[in-house]
Amino acid sequence: MEIEELRKAHPEHWKLASAIRALAMDAVQAANSGHPGAPMGLADVATVLFSKHLKFDASAPKWADRDRFVLSAGHASMLVYALLHLSGDQQVTLEQIKNFRQMGALTAGHPENFLLDAVETTTGPLGQGIATAVGMAIAEESLRAHWGKKLVDHRTWVIVGDGCLMEGISQEAIGLAGMQELNNLIVLWDNNDITIDGRVSMSDKTDQRARFAASGWSVLHCDGHDPVDIDRALTAAKKAKGPVLVDCKTIIGFGAPNKSDSYAAHGSPLGDEEIARTKAIYGWNHGPFEIPADIKSAWEAIGSRGATERAEWEERFAALSDNKRGEFTRIMTGTVSKKLVGAIRNFKKEQAEAAPKVATRKASEMVLGVINPACPETLGGSADLTGSNLTKSKEMSVFNPENRKGRYIHYGIREHGMAAAMNGMFLHGGVRPYGGTFFCFTDYARGAMRLSALMKVPTVYVMTHDSIGLGEDGPTHQPVEHLAICRATPNTLTFRPADVVETAEAWEIAMSQEGTPSILALSRQNLPTLRTEYKPQNLTAKGAYVIAEAEGKRQAILMATGSEVEIAMKAREILQAQAIGTRVVSMPCMELFAAQDESYRKRILPPNSVRVAVEAAVRQPWDRWLLGERGREAKAGFVGMDRFGASAPAGELYEKFGITPEAVADKVKALL
Amino acid sequence: MEIEELRKAHPEHWKLASAIRALAMDAVQAANSGHPGAPMGLADVATVLFSKHLKFDASAPKWADRDRFVLSAGHASMLVYALLHLSGDQQVTLEQIKNFRQMGALTAGHPENFLLDAVETTTGPLGQGIATAVGMAIAEESLRAHWGKKLVDHRTWVIVGDGCLMEGISQEAIGLAGMQELNNLIVLWDNNDITIDGRVSMSDKTDQRARFAASGWSVLHCDGHDPVDIDRALTAAKKAKGPVLVDCKTIIGFGAPNKSDSYAAHGSPLGDEEIARTKAIYGWNHGPFEIPADIKSAWEAIGSRGATERAEWEERFAALSDNKRGEFTRIMTGTVSKKLVGAIRNFKKEQAEAAPKVATRKASEMVLGVINPACPETLGGSADLTGSNLTKSKEMSVFNPENRKGRYIHYGIREHGMAAAMNGMFLHGGVRPYGGTFFCFTDYARGAMRLSALMKVPTVYVMTHDSIGLGEDGPTHQPVEHLAICRATPNTLTFRPADVVETAEAWEIAMSQEGTPSILALSRQNLPTLRTEYKPQNLTAKGAYVIAEAEGKRQAILMATGSEVEIAMKAREILQAQAIGTRVVSMPCMELFAAQDESYRKRILPPNSVRVAVEAAVRQPWDRWLLGERGREAKAGFVGMDRFGASAPAGELYEKFGITPEAVADKVKALL
Repeated sequence: MEIEELRKAHPEHWKLASAIRALAMDAVQAANSGHPGAPMGLADVATVLFSKHLKFDASAPKWADRDRFVLSAGHASMLVYALLHLSGDQQVTLEQIKNFRQMGALTAGHPENFLLDAVETTTGPLGQGIATAVGMAIAEESLRAHWGKKLVDHRTWVIVGDGCLMEGISQEAIGLAGMQELNNLIVLWDNNDITIDGRVSMSDKTDQRARFAASGWSVLHCDGHDPVDIDRALTAAKKAKGPVLVDCKTIIGFGAPNKSDSYAAHGSPLGDEEIARTKAIYGWNHGPFEIPADIKSAWEAIGSRGATERAEWEERFAALSDNKRGEFTRIMTGTVSKKLVGAIRNFKKEQAEAAPKVATRKASEMVLGVINPACPETLGGSADLTGSNLTKSKEMSVFNPENRKGRYIHYGIREHGMAAAMNGMFLHGGVRPYGGTFFCFTDYARGAMRLSALMKVPTVYVMTHDSIGLGEDGPTHQPVEHLAICRATPNTLTFRPADVVETAEAWEIAMSQEGTPSILALSRQNLPTLRTEYKPQNLTAKGAYVIAEAEGKRQAILMATGSEVEIAMKAREILQAQAIGTRVVSMPCMELFAAQDESYRKRILPPNSVRVAVEAAVRQPWDRWLLGERGREAKAGFVGMDRFGASAPAGELYEKFGITPEAVADKVKALL
Repeated sequence: MEIEELRKAHPEHWKLASAIRALAMDAVQAANSGHPGAPMGLADVATVLFSKHLKFDASAPKWADRDRFVLSAGHASMLVYALLHLSGDQQVTLEQIKNFRQMGALTAGHPENFLLDAVETTTGPLGQGIATAVGMAIAEESLRAHWGKKLVDHRTWVIVGDGCLMEGISQEAIGLAGMQELNNLIVLWDNNDITIDGRVSMSDKTDQRARFAASGWSVLHCDGHDPVDIDRALTAAKKAKGPVLVDCKTIIGFGAPNKSDSYAAHGSPLGDEEIARTKAIYGWNHGPFEIPADIKSAWEAIGSRGATERAEWEERFAALSDNKRGEFTRIMTGTVSKKLVGAIRNFKKEQAEAAPKVATRKASEMVLGVINPACPETLGGSADLTGSNLTKSKEMSVFNPENRKGRYIHYGIREHGMAAAMNGMFLHGGVRPYGGTFFCFTDYARGAMRLSALMKVPTVYVMTHDSIGLGEDGPTHQPVEHLAICRATPNTLTFRPADVVETAEAWEIAMSQEGTPSILALSRQNLPTLRTEYKPQNLTAKGAYVIAEAEGKRQAILMATGSEVEIAMKAREILQAQAIGTRVVSMPCMELFAAQDESYRKRILPPNSVRVAVEAAVRQPWDRWLLGERGREAKAGFVGMDRFGASAPAGELYEKFGITPEAVADKVKALL
């Protein structure tokens, strides 16, 4: 019997791996939900990785120069929890293992970076892990180039399943990593040939080794249950060129007499009887959750393998100048440079005076010309729309295998891969990423953008061409529902600045975030500077503010964002000329406005005036502000989009869809 | 000089191709926006394809057995418009070409299926075309198996660019097509080595031939400017095994002296001078938009190449029995079977009596047991969650290379690829597709789901596990903002049925749609049958209706959807026990409710009662109904989610997030 042979040939390894398997089976059984099969199949690979290759110190899960370990197949979460518990992680106690998937436990159904220090990234939606890991590997290369090998020199290890590899996002990541020749990235493929629906061949016949090789990866393979063969492959992987795929042939639910090598082992508890029989086959004669002391200590020794290495690193770090230590700590903790505030203020002052008529995407480029010199940790990029998103400021050179000091990435036509990589860069630490595409292609990046919000990663998404103002490219490229989408997403700041000053303010807020991603929705078309009176305060930080007050008795309040603030201002002129006192509220960020206290909100939107909102997008997010949060506040109307756009010059589209100063004024008068 | 040689060697071909190039340059110049480079690079490939290989008849662009032609690189739209105009398409007049990208023109910035009969699918967002084409090829295989080669026997041809191939969605499509061994699918790769940011090597080093081969495709190549070589490759492609990639080496902006082979030719007009010099190089001595009569007739001859073939097909079709002709026409036009109404009524009656307590995903499976036998054109599937989405009804066998009569597709872990393929199936005609995944993974499929709405494709998305009711898998798998996302999207019906009866009604409406996709948000957890009184009318079709009336004076209206209707009903009991007259409104489809006339909406939601909505999701779509469409109608409150979920058993999560009958009752009392 194969297991019998393995047990005899590698008794110490077998015990270590069995402990993982036993905990996985027991925890899933106790939770009465979860995924036992993958942890059981991966236990040998993980044991070899942790005991011989991964650079880590269980007592310091956030040590800057640790290897990063990402379980892209996040449903196999019990693998991570078992590894952490066994190796001595302070957070993952046995109690936590017993509370797997229960309310308040740190051991959630899928690994969550915001619950456990040692979890590098939240995984769960398949493919996100590998794509995020590519960003971590990029961040490492970048930091190593800037800080030197003595301070930054580690690898990113990823475990992917068959499911991960079918997802488009992984494919984008494979291409990006291959192009960037990321030597420090090693992906271990849990090649167990099983998906939820059955055999992989039911849905895929891709030769994965050939597929990775096609994108310039080194490809190795091993018997995923033979520790000697695994060790050989991982040793070779560390020396191989470019990113590496190790094809680890495994058996899901390894050892379970009835359920191994079947989807039956994937997503449900094995059942008490199958567990008992499996443990007997393992030679594991211990009760549920019971780990013999000798095995626990062997694992704890593994957990402290990296202690010396870490101590040496700490010494090298301590030897740096105060300045350098301070700066390294600042960027690794994602703290914004103090230089930024002053730089942005100066910029705002200049712009308020110059009052240029520029698209907010152009304004964003101008602001980046201030931010990037002040914040050396930024790493910008675009999904192949550099000249449209205007994300590359002048002094930036391109990050690529020949120039790791470059601070600009050509992500290619890979919006989802870009978004996930940006998550990985920030999670790695030391890098504050921003990246651009057309706002409409939020659709392509949604999976990773949601994870920015969930994981508390303050990525900045530079989303240009933010409405029908995009013009001739037509409805496939014109966002209509995307402001609603971004605003509906928890823990996300959606900015739609009206001019160059608001753009600078939005960028300042975005750069200062420590746990919230920002979306900058920016115009293609030129917009006048409306904020021509310089104010040092960041008015955008309030979310909404009065940009033009009513003259005479206030009868109407117009609310608008971005390119439609200009329209609201013109509507106000029409109305004031007819003696209708009209206030204009610019609302660059609804989320920040919602976060103000009630008295501020009431001050900006007092009851009883007629309210009309103008935004070239769907109405859904506006009802709250139009109607009052508890109802009965105001008569209200909306000027915007209720269908998809069309292909034509921008100005004509605004006319066609009736988003004009005249239409706004008419709406107000109809309501009065 | 290469062009000189080509001109001399293939004078007739050269003229045909030059006409395409000239129109592309002229139209982009006249529009002062657009993409000249790709049509110029592709003109030779397209000329050979249309003149020698594509089965089509320009006078009958909707002929059922035509080859499908998809321009995945949709920005090259002038290629299609030029081909259509030249070959004699009735819609694409020279006037239309001159109005390229202008208001109201059929010649939009990107090809739109809803503007031109001959445009098989809207392309624009990169990668959608190839992924949609995979669905067309699947539909052809399926129909051929059911109707025979005499009626259905055609190919799907796709042109992709380098940009398409970097997108994750294409990668999913490549895997799916390879697994399905789609012999009728031929992809022509416009290998011009240029993206918007510059050389492809700046962002990708993938060996595309190897990448396709890894997924089981046949791979051929040709010089994309040599008509003989192109013809050789396309001839070979028709005989090759499995789906075929033809690597066509091309030069973007072919012939333009200063801009060819550069991103400068990609997305802007060439300019009058460069156009003049290019035309001189072509030997094209004609004014803007001028096509010599001999060239136009040569092209029109190409346009009528397929006339005989079509006439023969029409004869074979006419020879069918009335029944068969009627049925073929019914399914090709996407008309729902008349059998369905009765079948759904019977089902509703049975269920109202039996009143089972089942999850709505289970209810959906039960309904499919009625729909699938009544509607032989359904083709179901799931992105590897068959046992969770419950999308495979009993009698269905699996569609795969061994069984083309199967009506169920294992899409693999490819949500985006599935959604696009479903679009393609419906656009092909003859198939009504539905497919499932977890509702949260709407995020992964958004790009194609938006296109369903834009293209007027009535796909049915079976989205199960629709809230925190999903439980232990945690926040990455728990939708919170996704109802808002779907409801914000134009031309989309979002259903969240409360029980088995509403589920049947929702399915009936979804199946009857001719131009609107439906999303069914279905529960993981069991729900009681609330509609125990049988009514033949489809109450869900009104979008919202009174499911329980107030006893005594009505003081409150509770609104809810899906699993929260049960909670609202229990809250009503609490309130009624305290003599607070409470109406409960079930609102399974906001879009349909919004489409009712004002008097119906007022009847369901009369002013002056306190309104509280309950939905385990964000509030954004509810404000309209809570606050009244013009304000001042009601005091209002909301019980739902304002953050991401957590990992724990479902019941505990509802408690934790305060979505309980008690919380709803308390909210009402606080407002009264």
